[in-house]
Amino acid sequence: DHSEYSELEVLFKNPQIHVKNPHLDTMEEDVLYHFNLGTKTHNLPEMFGDIKFVCVGGSANRMKSFAQFIQQELALPGNMDNITDICEGTDRYSMYKVYFLSVYPGMGVPSISIMLHELIKLLHHARCIDFALFRIGTSGGVGLEPGTVVVTDKEVDCFFRAQFEQVVLGKVITRSTELDVGVSKELLQCSSELDDVPTVIGNTMCTSDFYEGQGRLDGALCSFSTEDKLEYLRKAYNTGVRNIEMESTVFRAMCRVCAITAVVCVTLLNRFDGDQISTPHDVLVEYQQRPQVLVAHFIKKRLGLIV
Amino acid sequence: DHSEYSELEVLFKNPQIHVKNPHLDTMEEDVLYHFNLGTKTHNLPEMFGDIKFVCVGGSANRMKSFAQFIQQELALPGNMDNITDICEGTDRYSMYKVYFLSVYPGMGVPSISIMLHELIKLLHHARCIDFALFRIGTSGGVGLEPGTVVVTDKEVDCFFRAQFEQVVLGKVITRSTELDVGVSKELLQCSSELDDVPTVIGNTMCTSDFYEGQGRLDGALCSFSTEDKLEYLRKAYNTGVRNIEMESTVFRAMCRVCAITAVVCVTLLNRFDGDQISTPHDVLVEYQQRPQVLVAHFIKKRLGLIV
Repeated sequence: DHSEYSELEVLFKNPQIHVKNPHLDTMEEDVLYHFNLGTKTHNLPEMFGDIKFVCVGGSANRMKSFAQFIQQELALPGNMDNITDICEGTDRYSMYKVYFLSVYPGMGVPSISIMLHELIKLLHHARCIDFALFRIGTSGGVGLEPGTVVVTDKEVDCFFRAQFEQVVLGKVITRSTELDVGVSKELLQCSSELDDVPTVIGNTMCTSDFYEGQGRLDGALCSFSTEDKLEYLRKAYNTGVRNIEMESTVFRAMCRVCAITAVVCVTLLNRFDGDQISTPHDVLVEYQQRPQVLVAHFIKKRLGLIV
Repeated sequence: DHSEYSELEVLFKNPQIHVKNPHLDTMEEDVLYHFNLGTKTHNLPEMFGDIKFVCVGGSANRMKSFAQFIQQELALPGNMDNITDICEGTDRYSMYKVYFLSVYPGMGVPSISIMLHELIKLLHHARCIDFALFRIGTSGGVGLEPGTVVVTDKEVDCFFRAQFEQVVLGKVITRSTELDVGVSKELLQCSSELDDVPTVIGNTMCTSDFYEGQGRLDGALCSFSTEDKLEYLRKAYNTGVRNIEMESTVFRAMCRVCAITAVVCVTLLNRFDGDQISTPHDVLVEYQQRPQVLVAHFIKKRLGLIV
């Protein structure tokens, strides 16, 4: 029985999802290959039509526990232990749905970009309207205490430009990551109402490699000095970068036209102090919950469950 | 008891693994974060020192079944049903070891690049010598019958150049994907000794997106025409490209200096005929086994188990 949830008015001002592809209308069937879903094999409006919030990120296990956490926080009906992976027919992605949709997109821009293409088409086929998309996850901090949550102002590439570049048919195309509708300040306000979720707004740098690409000295290959690394990190800091991860630019560039979006990542270390993540496991687990707690609080406020 | 295997001489001429990073020698501990392994917490030489073959690719389930297949084919000791995921403490990657190592690296260059940094360091810490690294997987075919296996001659980027570009500290660096030691012809010879593994040698194009980046018309975004797409695929074909995937350039660029390498991917469709993968599941499963069968045959020949 969905009625309890359906009666809650979600007051987003974004329109129905835009799919910017004229070819889709001419297709008899659309197979969402990496989700193991399709328009002929599944009733997508029935399965997904009520979705108002989508969270992508984390790891497969974390996204499962996040779905369970949201179900508990929103006091949604259903048995929390019985959440099954909607994508279990494939082992590319993991997807959990409890009115809210929680997806693990893998690591890096190409992996999340495949997922976003199929997710946007899924929400389009399911005729979803008025929803918000969050990317949550972990990141390296730049000049912040480990455990700080960064709500992204601008997603920048490794040249500190607020754009996402992609090669299409041998030509480089550029998409902006600038916000249409920002919810950063609303999320920052939420953090002030919570204990133990220290939060700042800052720029997030998105790279295509974790080691050399983020100036780490501890990869299998490294051709630069400690001083070169620190100079690059200082430059990044001076342009407003406060954390580094690997998915944010394509997330914002692809989703900003179709939904309210926010990128919320916790920092696991301060890169000025080192490269390795050697923090004890239980501390990391607590850090990783912070973006979940913050986004859950935001959702509850939007739903009017707390004032 | 490893003796049965240890007595088999593996006659590779490649030296011990090179880790091109002077900083590693100064580190007291090396935490391989995404594998959930470390030099202080695990005895890496004991766990991995006997590795002679590493296969990366596929999907998590396929890499598990490949490990079981190899164990059966090589008549290795141990219970095939009891293979556990070495990376089960994390849910980033999956890793199975049966003398031979089978790893699922996720999708796309950034995901496999993190894995390769940690894999190369792992093999270095484990003091492995004389081994071969294979990337196996699926791909889109260019002018080939679906089900054809492509053994890669050259890995090229989306401008058809045999190179891998990466941004390091804000500067673009370029690494060659040209082969040091090619095993392509040996793999082609192997395929001629097998039934139902139609194989060609060709160039493999590596892209950073599955939809627009590979000229697909069925993504959430598409700004080009069918004719634009076909013109790009024809150009690719004329430069020698026979399949398209998302990991090969960084695999070859990073591994060619440290091991014998080969890229072996089956094609799931002919991109001149369409974009969607709608082939029945059982046919796809059979196609996906072909690179495994070919690489297993190669390994058995190298080990002298078949003449």
